[in-house]
Order: sequence, then structure tokens, then C-alpha cells
Amino acid sequence: MSRLKNVAHLPPKGWNSWDCYGASVTEDEVLGNAEYMAKHLLPHGWEYVVVDIQWYEPTARSSIYNAFAPLEMDGHARLMPAVNRFPSAAGGKGFAPLGEKIHAMGLKFGIHMMRGIPRQAVHANTPILGTNRTARDIAANNICPWNSDMYGVNPAADGAQAYYDSLFALYASWGVDFVKVDDIATSRLYPFFREEIEMLRLAIDRCGRDMVLSLSPGPAPLEHAAALKQNANMWRMTDDYWDKWHYLKGMFERCAKWWPLVGDHGWPDCDMLPLGHIGIRSVDGNWPHPWEPLGANNRQTRFTRDEQRTMMVLWTIFRSPMFFGGELRDNDDWTLALLTDPLLVEMHREIRKSWPEGSGNKDVVIWRAEGVSADYVARFNIGEVPVEGIPPHGVILERVVK
Amino acid sequence: MSRLKNVAHLPPKGWNSWDCYGASVTEDEVLGNAEYMAKHLLPHGWEYVVVDIQWYEPTARSSIYNAFAPLEMDGHARLMPAVNRFPSAAGGKGFAPLGEKIHAMGLKFGIHMMRGIPRQAVHANTPILGTNRTARDIAANNICPWNSDMYGVNPAADGAQAYYDSLFALYASWGVDFVKVDDIATSRLYPFFREEIEMLRLAIDRCGRDMVLSLSPGPAPLEHAAALKQNANMWRMTDDYWDKWHYLKGMFERCAKWWPLVGDHGWPDCDMLPLGHIGIRSVDGNWPHPWEPLGANNRQTRFTRDEQRTMMVLWTIFRSPMFFGGELRDNDDWTLALLTDPLLVEMHREIRKSWPEGSGNKDVVIWRAEGVSADYVARFNIGEVPVEGIPPHGVILERVVK
Amino acid sequence: MSRLKNVAHLPPKGWNSWDCYGASVTEDEVLGNAEYMAKHLLPHGWEYVVVDIQWYEPTARSSIYNAFAPLEMDGHARLMPAVNRFPSAAGGKGFAPLGEKIHAMGLKFGIHMMRGIPRQAVHANTPILGTNRTARDIAANNICPWNSDMYGVNPAADGAQAYYDSLFALYASWGVDFVKVDDIATSRLYPFFREEIEMLRLAIDRCGRDMVLSLSPGPAPLEHAAALKQNANMWRMTDDYWDKWHYLKGMFERCAKWWPLVGDHGWPDCDMLPLGHIGIRSVDGNWPHPWEPLGANNRQTRFTRDEQRTMMVLWTIFRSPMFFGGELRDNDDWTLALLTDPLLVEMHREIRKSWPEGSGNKDVVIWRAEGVSADYVARFNIGEVPVEGIPPHGVILERVVK
Amino acid sequence: MSRLKNVAHLPPKGWNSWDCYGASVTEDEVLGNAEYMAKHLLPHGWEYVVVDIQWYEPTARSSIYNAFAPLEMDGHARLMPAVNRFPSAAGGKGFAPLGEKIHAMGLKFGIHMMRGIPRQAVHANTPILGTNRTARDIAANNICPWNSDMYGVNPAADGAQAYYDSLFALYASWGVDFVKVDDIATSRLYPFFREEIEMLRLAIDRCGRDMVLSLSPGPAPLEHAAALKQNANMWRMTDDYWDKWHYLKGMFERCAKWWPLVGDHGWPDCDMLPLGHIGIRSVDGNWPHPWEPLGANNRQTRFTRDEQRTMMVLWTIFRSPMFFGGELRDNDDWTLALLTDPLLVEMHREIRKSWPEGSGNKDVVIWRAEGVSADYVARFNIGEVPVEGIPPHGVILERVVK
Repeated sequence: MSRLKNVAHLPPKGWNSWDCYGASVTEDEVLGNAEYMAKHLLPHGWEYVVVDIQWYEPTARSSIYNAFAPLEMDGHARLMPAVNRFPSAAGGKGFAPLGEKIHAMGLKFGIHMMRGIPRQAVHANTPILGTNRTARDIAANNICPWNSDMYGVNPAADGAQAYYDSLFALYASWGVDFVKVDDIATSRLYPFFREEIEMLRLAIDRCGRDMVLSLSPGPAPLEHAAALKQNANMWRMTDDYWDKWHYLKGMFERCAKWWPLVGDHGWPDCDMLPLGHIGIRSVDGNWPHPWEPLGANNRQTRFTRDEQRTMMVLWTIFRSPMFFGGELRDNDDWTLALLTDPLLVEMHREIRKSWPEGSGNKDVVIWRAEGVSADYVARFNIGEVPVEGIPPHGVILERVVK
Repeated sequence: MSRLKNVAHLPPKGWNSWDCYGASVTEDEVLGNAEYMAKHLLPHGWEYVVVDIQWYEPTARSSIYNAFAPLEMDGHARLMPAVNRFPSAAGGKGFAPLGEKIHAMGLKFGIHMMRGIPRQAVHANTPILGTNRTARDIAANNICPWNSDMYGVNPAADGAQAYYDSLFALYASWGVDFVKVDDIATSRLYPFFREEIEMLRLAIDRCGRDMVLSLSPGPAPLEHAAALKQNANMWRMTDDYWDKWHYLKGMFERCAKWWPLVGDHGWPDCDMLPLGHIGIRSVDGNWPHPWEPLGANNRQTRFTRDEQRTMMVLWTIFRSPMFFGGELRDNDDWTLALLTDPLLVEMHREIRKSWPEGSGNKDVVIWRAEGVSADYVARFNIGEVPVEGIPPHGVILERVVK
Repeated sequence: MSRLKNVAHLPPKGWNSWDCYGASVTEDEVLGNAEYMAKHLLPHGWEYVVVDIQWYEPTARSSIYNAFAPLEMDGHARLMPAVNRFPSAAGGKGFAPLGEKIHAMGLKFGIHMMRGIPRQAVHANTPILGTNRTARDIAANNICPWNSDMYGVNPAADGAQAYYDSLFALYASWGVDFVKVDDIATSRLYPFFREEIEMLRLAIDRCGRDMVLSLSPGPAPLEHAAALKQNANMWRMTDDYWDKWHYLKGMFERCAKWWPLVGDHGWPDCDMLPLGHIGIRSVDGNWPHPWEPLGANNRQTRFTRDEQRTMMVLWTIFRSPMFFGGELRDNDDWTLALLTDPLLVEMHREIRKSWPEGSGNKDVVIWRAEGVSADYVARFNIGEVPVEGIPPHGVILERVVK
Repeated sequence: MSRLKNVAHLPPKGWNSWDCYGASVTEDEVLGNAEYMAKHLLPHGWEYVVVDIQWYEPTARSSIYNAFAPLEMDGHARLMPAVNRFPSAAGGKGFAPLGEKIHAMGLKFGIHMMRGIPRQAVHANTPILGTNRTARDIAANNICPWNSDMYGVNPAADGAQAYYDSLFALYASWGVDFVKVDDIATSRLYPFFREEIEMLRLAIDRCGRDMVLSLSPGPAPLEHAAALKQNANMWRMTDDYWDKWHYLKGMFERCAKWWPLVGDHGWPDCDMLPLGHIGIRSVDGNWPHPWEPLGANNRQTRFTRDEQRTMMVLWTIFRSPMFFGGELRDNDDWTLALLTDPLLVEMHREIRKSWPEGSGNKDVVIWRAEGVSADYVARFNIGEVPVEGIPPHGVILERVVK
């Protein structure tokens, strides 16, 4: 029986470490943000705390990957938290202690993983747990183009499913509630990874614990929307998103393409919210200057308040998952108010259906939503001058009692 | 206000002249099939009678187009029924008399049209009704690759929408209930014709009469599913479909891609049902021998009874529109029984949601559906040998009371 | 026997009406430029006078095509010069009188033609000379995407070759020495038109007169270089070229791809030289403002003197055909000196082989050539600051005695 | 100064181990074939003896690669001959002793190499000779899709050129005369590897020894023909070629596309000649049955004698490199006679230029060649019935004294 619909009744909301800490977040930082969330955001539906990529890489210090760097790994090709960054993982305990603490706050715990099997396991020919197979037997000679940690897994190989099962058994033992799987929703090198997605689905269904399955990066191919809906709870419909207006403007077009696929425990994903204090150790999102020194990106979001509100309204009315990307503890009052805006919180909970409508003006985009007890209309101005009373890059949101 | 959701509450069912008569059907043949439908099929939900392509081409005699042939046209670039084929159209009455007769039987009347404006109108520079523009002003220098009748219409041209409005005003006056627009859902030469689709939508919304909007040919691009759902009631998800197993087998893959887009007055279309007596004057569907003489294709459907039933169950459980393509008056009892099968008729009416499921056997495809008062499970064998009690190319269908 | 190698022993040099007069040149203008060429340029190897597109369109007045405009045509689907523009063509004499005058000056006469058969001939079903076929029998339902004059010709149709033969018989009777065939070297809609190119080749070989065959537009596909070399004397390796630095800079990359294909009566073509007084009635080449009023483009070339010299050296050392695009009679002394520069004239005549070389500096491009009695080295600076003594956008050219 | 034109004055001819021994040839086998060549073929222009892929893989036993297998490597990321297969390589002598023996026979010695740096060196972070860099510093995260031995080399990395230089310094010390570089002429995953090709060229130019540079696999992109001609002596214009008629028939089309690029020390390559006794330990070339047990492919060439002759004539008149793929010692008299046919040997030496011609019959392909003292005409029948006196799949070759 699939666990797909045991979770994600609504678009998931939470925090993710990428936009502020890149590949280098530490246990203290995770816990600090969790505490903030438990105190300020949980009553408003924010509940997931997600540790993003390379928690197994001891030398990670930004969002730049150290090519071919050795990774922390157990004897069965399963990556383990780097103890220098996650001290509670010492003694082989993995993320279990961290998961427990997060659960104790009433929150849910999420981790990132890459499609595939560590390349170092393949070169070391590590045995696969519960089989008489080794990493070389199940590895596929395909790679992620932007990260050198993993090989793919060959779906036809004996031991392949057992490998993914062994990963999720471990994650279940850690209390993981949410898995963001990367290098799988789109690939610039290979066809759609349908079979690895199906292996992940099966591994979750077998692991003894419900978990949200989130697929990255994007844009996921609309052509394969049916397979995404059958296996995952959310998938990126966009490449990495950052705090520049052109990214936000582009999202209107993506939402206009994906809205018929929204709902029923499956949520096309507009990517994280680069709000508040970001770029602390991440150096992404600053194109075309990725080579700037660490700290050069350390900033408050570059979005104006109108743009921030436009983003929150669009994500909410479209029903995208929402993961705050900033250091929560540095939020100012305005930002906190935005995250806890009662109308947005209501809309997240109440909307059952939404769609865009033409407006006769190419700069005015209208979205309508039907909720349980009210309807909602958002009128966005994506142009550069005020129009129909809406400021440029701004939005007017209305609640209509039925 | 859009008329989109005034129609097609269920997937439309009816008859279409293409599979038996190609581009050459006559008034008598249309009426004969309508009478049969009224008598035998209407109580089972079959209601549309559709005259397919080139009713304006006096010399059409098969499914082969006479390249650059002169067409019957009024003084405003609007094609008119060829009187030698549709005698009741004499005196400029168009399809009004035929529409009336079909309505009198309790049925609905449909016609085919091509995207664009007749090339002969452009060369004659015909005026556009209700404007001071001419055909050359609004024509776009783009063409259908497989038929030489029309140029496209330039959406940016003054008079373009007025032209489409004038077409649908005429069709409304004829009592048209269903329009199959061709050369528009996919193109092998040009990008997606979103703007011409939007002009069609607007023309229907303004014409004073509800009409089902059906788009051909296929495969329509899944990438543009949202635009299809916002403007049309059905669209072809496949190229022309004929009575060979490989076409039917291929449809399982297409249904597996499109199922999340089914419903809410928008129906991905598996194309017509090439059943019963077909190929009477059509010479298509016989590839690779399209050059065979007229009459060489005259046949009973080549599908076996298992295949026919498989097709009917798949179209029904997927919720495709269903248009019978054979000469209805030549149906044998078995074929009539298939079209009026009580369980299939119930499923068409009752299903609210359906989806495919993996089966662990690549030859066994399972579809499940939820209905108002019962659920349904269809287990198809798409392989060449019996499996799990299902004959090759066959299906076992179950009704499960909730 | 092919006439391919009877002509174009060197890259052809001449004048073409497009850059100054667009589709609207007149007889007087052609003759005026011819006289200038005979007097000033012929001794330096410039010899072809080419009337570009739409000499058969009476209402042409710029470089913008009047969509679907009626064309001057004889009774056999052959386009004829518009007498209001070419008075000597009156009485059905076509271009024969103009050709004669040009020959009398010691020059050679060229005309433009489009691939295919006039659409108006197809709609009128005009007979094809010397056959019992008509335009509809041989027309192919394919079109040029940027001009509405013609349909393609179906190579498999009986009468197709006869049609092209009838065209070239007419052109031979006019004394045509050079044919620029358009809509054939590349297409944005269709695969490579190999068969129409072969029909053209055969028609020339049969017509009784040697003619240079030039194919447009570009970029011609390098993938089909062999077919180009077997059938044509020159073909465009670039889309339309104008007097902006980015076009000229881009040509270095194209030359670097095509140089091994240069020679033996086949010349990859860098397109016309937009020098001197251009844009007189052409409104092209001013992107992104094509809508500007007639006359707005009327200008001296926007190229600086360094850029003009860079262009002339590159065209010469690469061995491109060279067709001056400006109104010759308005040349200043500097421009005339450029066209008659003794070293460039020598290089055009003497070079047997040339190729680019890496330079260790991405802004410095080196070309070397071997001539009969000397070698040549050109060092181009394609960057924005002086380097190695070469000004930005400039060139240093050396002659090395062997 | 480039060594490009110091070699390959004529299309290279020789023997290659792939078609008979796959990735598993041994020293004895190489020497045995060399001795045969020296005795029987050298006087007829056959001179290169080439050890194909994976001479550094101790466990290779067929043409199937053992995924992720450990490779024999020195301390500087340079692969070394597996001593169990090449005993003379013991003691770190590499291929020097084998090279010497081959030279002593009057022959030339060739080896295969893959683009890039061994993955195992990257994971071990091996130092790069003559630099303070390591394998991780210069590796590019790109891979060959069909073999798991190597990563690419990052052309922008400090140490990258030094690595390739260190490889060719070693090969020069071994007496290598010919290098077949693989995974570089085409890629199914990545754009054209222009920069790695340029690094190879430079490494050869610096290494102190002339070497033929041969690039594989194919089809190399015609779009990049200029870059190929500037850097390499031969490049594959086809994917792997085997002894089935459809491969040979397809080569006519490839030759028709590439002939203008033939000559001047650069030779488009039709791939090896699968003649005589092949498939001894190779299991390729038997698609669609690659899984058949070792030995199942052990065979005499499947080509008929007409086909063998057709192939030899086409390769010769087109001027392809020619590498015999069978076990030479098992040649019968007929095969030896074919390889030493005086007319073919003369043509290889004498032809200066060749090209295909149309024949009016789609089954008859004509090639003409101009030689120093004679011309040649080959008339091939690529159809299935005799035509114009030529047997099906056969050829008639004529020598025409000028």
C-alpha cells in the first residue's frame, strides 16, 4: 500500500537550510531555527525543518561543492552526518538524536539526499546491506552534472531496490518525515529517471514510516506529470530560485502551465522562499558573480516588500509548498508578520482549487481560488508602472465570502 | 462569460463520418446514421452527429485531398456546404436544414473546420464581414502541412477576431452544437497555436450558442495542457488512430501520461472508434498502402472482439470522448451490444476519477476508477499470451460496490 | 555535362541591389550602377550586376514584402519584370534588353529568383510550358516562411523538372549569367531542399548558357556541404548581414567552420558588403526598428573605416564572394580606394589556400593564405582595446614573398 | 610547430586488435599479427600495428568492460600495460619493449587511449607529474557513457595540459607512432570536446616524436570538420562498423557527405575492416545478441566476397584509413589477395581527389577518382538484384589511363 497519500494533505510548509547556509549548515543552526519555528510559526502551519545537501561532507563551508571530496559513510554505502558539523551523530547515531529533538518541539524533520550511490562506495566496492551484492554490482555509469558525489543506481540490477530500502530503513530509524531527493526531477544529461523515482517510492512504502517525497531540481518535465503525481508529493517546476525580480516574474508563467496538476497530495513546487537574512554562507543566487568571496552574499533579501508579498500570495494561491530559506532568528517583525499573515494562512488551509485568468492587460495577472467557505482573487501587476491601482511588482488580494 | 463549462459535463459520445467516408460524406449518409443513432444509441448516451472535413469541397470522393481544389465559399471568406453533396444547403441555407433535422431527432449536430482562412479567399482578397478589412489583411503566411485549403489567421491583425466571430455566428445560425477544429492541436511545422485557440474560444463565447470545442489533430502537447483545459472541451492526445493492434497498445502509454488532466469539462481524446463497417470511401488507416484503389479499404474493423472490448473499456475508464467511426446502419448485433453495454454506459456516466496502476507484470495494465456508487477495476493484457486469466489483447472488468 | 565548373574560377565579385534598394530597384538604378562598375571597378575584378528579389512585383517600394500581392507573370507560371520598374521589359521582352546593355559594358548580368512556383499560378492552374501539366500538378504544399510569393515544386511530380527547365531557358534567352536562388540554402520549416537544388543544377546544365548558381539565405547547413559543393558555386554561410560590429565579429566564427570547404568553383558566402550609401529604400538591417518610416535607414554604412577594412580583408583572405551593397554612384574616394586596393585585388586573384590559426590571445585572430607567388598573413583584433599594435576591430595585413 | 602534417601523407593502413580480440588482446597475439604484416603486407603499404582499448585492465577477457574495475596505473595517473597480458611491460617498462620489437620488423606501433584521467586516480588523488597539482585538481566531472574508466580533464585547470604532456612524453618514450583517442570524436552526452582535442594536439607537438592522431568514436560531427582537420589526422565518421550489409550500405551515404573534407593529412575514417577471422574474443558486432557466451561470435567475416570487395574499393577510392580487424595469421589466400590487390594498392598511393556522382539509378553509386597517372571509376550496385552487369552488393572498378 502506498504511503503517498498519508502525508502532504496540504502543501508542506517549513524551513530549509540552503538559502542561508548552502551545503554547510551545522546542528546548532538547525536547532536554532527549529526553536524559532516551534515558537513563532508552528501555530501558522509551518512545521518541516529540512537539512539540505551534503550533511555528510565534513569540509563543506559554503554552497560550492568540493569536487571528489571524501564523504562520511557507513560500511554499507550509506552516507552519515559529518560529526564535526553534527556532534550528536557521533557513535554512529546518525540523525536520530537531532530528529528526536525536533520532534520534541512538535516539528517534523527532513533531510536531503542525492539520487544514486556514493562514487567512493563504488570504488571501494562496499557491500550492500542485506544482500550479497556490492556497490559495483548496482551502480549505473551515470552522474549528476553539477555534483561529484554519486553514481546512479541501475534499476535492473539485483540489489538495487535493496540498497534504496536500506537507506530508507536507516532514515526511518532516524525519524525522518521528509526527504528532498536531488538530481532526479530533471537532468540535463539523461532522460527522465522514472525507474529511480519508482524505487524511491517503493522504498518509502516499505520503510515503516510516512515521509513526504520531494523531488529536485527543476524544471520537472510537464510531459511526465503523471509519473510525478503517482510517486511524489512535491516536485520542483523551476530551476533554483533566488531574490531577483526576473525569477519571480518567470514563476507566473510556470504556474500558468502547472495549475491543472495541483492537488490530491501532489504539489508542483515553486522552490524555496529567499526571504529575510540569506546568503550567510551560500554563494549561489548571485549570478553572474559566483566567484565572490565567502560573505559577499551575506544579505537581507533583495526583494522589495511589494515583491515579497507578491511572492507569498502567488505561492499561496497557486498552492506551492513553502520553505523559508533565511536564518529565521534574524527575522524582523515585518518578515514574521508576512509569514503569519492570517489571510495567507487561511488560504493555505482552505483553498481547494485555483487557476489563472486573462485580464486583457498583459501586465495584470489574475488568479482566482475556491475555498471551503470563501473565494479569493489576487490581481498582480507584473509590469513596471502602477496599473489599476496596483503598484509595480505588487498585488491586491481579495477575499470574497460565498 | 465563457461557455466552456456549459457543455461536455461528461466525455462526449457520438458518430463521426471520417472513418467510413473520409472527406466525402453526403447528406443522405449523415441522416441515415443520425436516424440509427436516435433509435438505437441515444438512450445510452450517444448524441453527437459530426460531419468531418471538407464538406465544402464538391469533388471530394475519399479521404485524399485534391490539392489546391476550389472550395464552395460565400462572399465573406466563409466556406459553405457543397450543394452537390448536401442538397438541403442550396440557396445559401448552409447546414441549417440538416441541423434542424438532426435536432428534431433529439440529437446534437457537429461540424469540422480548419484553423485559418481559405487560401482562395486570400488570393481573391475577399472582404471580412462586419469590417473594412480583407482576407489579405488578416491572413498569416502559415499553412497546414497536410491540406492545402487554408492560410492561418494573424492574431495581431485588425479583423482577425471579427473573422472568427463571423464564422461562429454563421455556425450558430445553423444550429451547430459541436465544432471539431483541425490543424490546431498540434503542428509539425509551427509552435503551439495558443492565440488562434483563444480566438476560437472567444468566438464561441460570443456567438450566442453553446458548442463543444474539440481540437485536432494530435498528439496535443502535454506541455500546453493548461491552455488546452482553459479553452477547449476535448483535444486529441494521439495522431490518427486506426484498427491495428499497435495503435491500441500505444494508447495505454498515452492514457498513462494524460490521466491527471481528465475532467471538469476538459477531456483528452483517444480519437474515434474505428469499429463496424469502415473504410467505405476512406483510404486512410491502411498504411503502408495508401495508394490502393478506392474500395480496397472497405472492411469490417480489423480489430478482434477482444481488442474491440479492450478499446471500449479503456476509452470508458480513462474517460475519453467516444465517436463511432463506422457506418452505423451496417452494425451487427454484437457491435450494437458493445456500444450499449450497460456496465460501460454506467461507467461513462458515473466515474468521477480514474488512474492506472503498476501490476508487477509489464503485460498487465490495471486501471481503477471511482464512481458515485461503485468503483471499477479493469485488468488489461497487452501481451501476446494469456496471463492471469486474461486473453491476449483482452480485458477483465470488475464493478466493486463500495 | 555539368556547367558547374565553367564559371566561378575565383570568388565572384559584383554589385547587388538589396542593401540600397531592397525589393524595389529600378532599371535606371541598375544601369547607373553598372556604368559606374564598368568605369571604376571592372579592371579590379568586379563584374557581376545583380537585380535582387521581386523584380516582378509592381508595387514593391522598400524591402518589405506586400503579402499575397499579385505578381507580373507570363502564361506559363514564369515571373516577368514589372514594366513600371523595368520599362525595357515591355512587350514581353523580359530582361533581354537590360541584359544586353550590361553585356555591352563588358559586365555580367545576374538576377534573383525564389525556389518554387508562384502561388497565383497554382490558384489559376496555369499550364507548364512544354508539358500537358499544370501548376497544381507540380506544386508542393510547402512555403517560404518570410515571403508569400511561391509554393515549392514537388520533385517527384511529372512536369517539375520541365518547369525549372522552362525558367532557365527563359533566363538564358535574357542573357543571364548569375542566378541567386532564395529560400533554398536553409529553411526554418523544412529539411534541406536537396532535390530542388538538384533540379536547379540540371536546369542550368541544360539551358545552353553558363550561369553562376548562388544559394540563399543562410546559414546553409555544414552537414550538407558536399551537396552544396556538387551543385552550386556559392552559398550563404550566414543569415542576412548588416553594418553592425556584432555581425562582422560573428563572421570570424563562421569562417573558422567553413574554410576547409572553400575552393574548386564552390565558395561559401559571407553575404553582401553593406558599404557606402545604403538603406536608401531598404528598411532591413536596422533591427530592432524595422517599422521605421521609409527613408529612416538612408545612411552611409555604420561601419568605421577600421571595420570596413577588416571586413574586406576577411572576405578576401577567406575567399568569400564579394557583392557591394551600396549605391555605387555615391561612393566617396575612400570607399572606391578600398574596393580597388591593389593588395586585396591581388589576393583575390592569387590565393590558392587559406586557414585560420590560433594566436594565444582570444581577441587576436590570425589568417594565413598561400598564393601563387606570395603568402599573406592577416592579424585581426576583434576585441575592444588595441592589442599587439592592432586597433580595436582593426587588422594588420602582410604580404610575404616566398 | 605542429607535427600534424609530418605524418599521414596517405590514409594510414594497418591492423587493430578490436574486431578479433575486443579489450583483451595479449602481447603474443600482437606480435604474431605484426610478424604476419611485416612478411605479407608491409610491401603493400600496411604498416601500423595498433593495440586497442584497455591494455591496462588485467581482467579484460572480451569486448565487454568490467564496470569500475581497478586498472594498472603508475604513481602519476598514467595507465600502464597489464603485465599479465603484456609480460614485457614488467618492471615499469611499459610498452617500450613491444614497441621496439615492432619497429625492428619495419612496422609502426599504435596504442589506444581514452580521453581524460582515470577515475581511480581522482579518488586516490594521485599527483600529476611535473606539477604540484593532483588528479582532483584537473578532473572534469564528465564521463564516457559506455566505459567507466575515466573522468574528463578540465581544460581551464592549471595542470591539465601538463597531464596530457606527461602521457605523451611516456608514449614517446615507448616509441608510439599512432594514438587512437576514444570518447572524443563524438559524445552522446556532451558538446564537442574541442578543447581536449586541442590539448592532445599540443601534447603531441611537444612530445618529441611524430604520431598519427586518430579520433573515435563516431559519427564525428561534420559541423566541426574544420576543428578536426586542424588537429587530427583521422576521425571516425561512423559509429562502430561490423560485418552486416546494412552497415556497409550506410557507409555510402556517409562518404557522400564527407568527401570534400578528405586529404591534406586529414582522413575521415570509415572504421576498421571486419574481415577474415574475427569475433575470437570480441562479442560486439552481433547486435541484438550481445549477451551470447564468449566464443559465440567466433567467425569468419559474414560479408560475402562481393561485399568484401565492395568495401575495399569504397574505402580505397574514398581514401579512408584502413585497419584490418581480423586475426591476420588465419587469413586464407583469397583474403590476403584482397589486401594486396595491385590495383587497390596503386589507388591508395596515387589518388589525389575523388567524389561520388549521381547515376540516374538509385541502386547504382558511382565514384570517380583522379590519380597522378590514371583515373579510376568504381560503379557499385547497392541494390538486391543485378543491374548494369554489376552483381548485387558488388562493384565494377575501372582504371582509365589519362
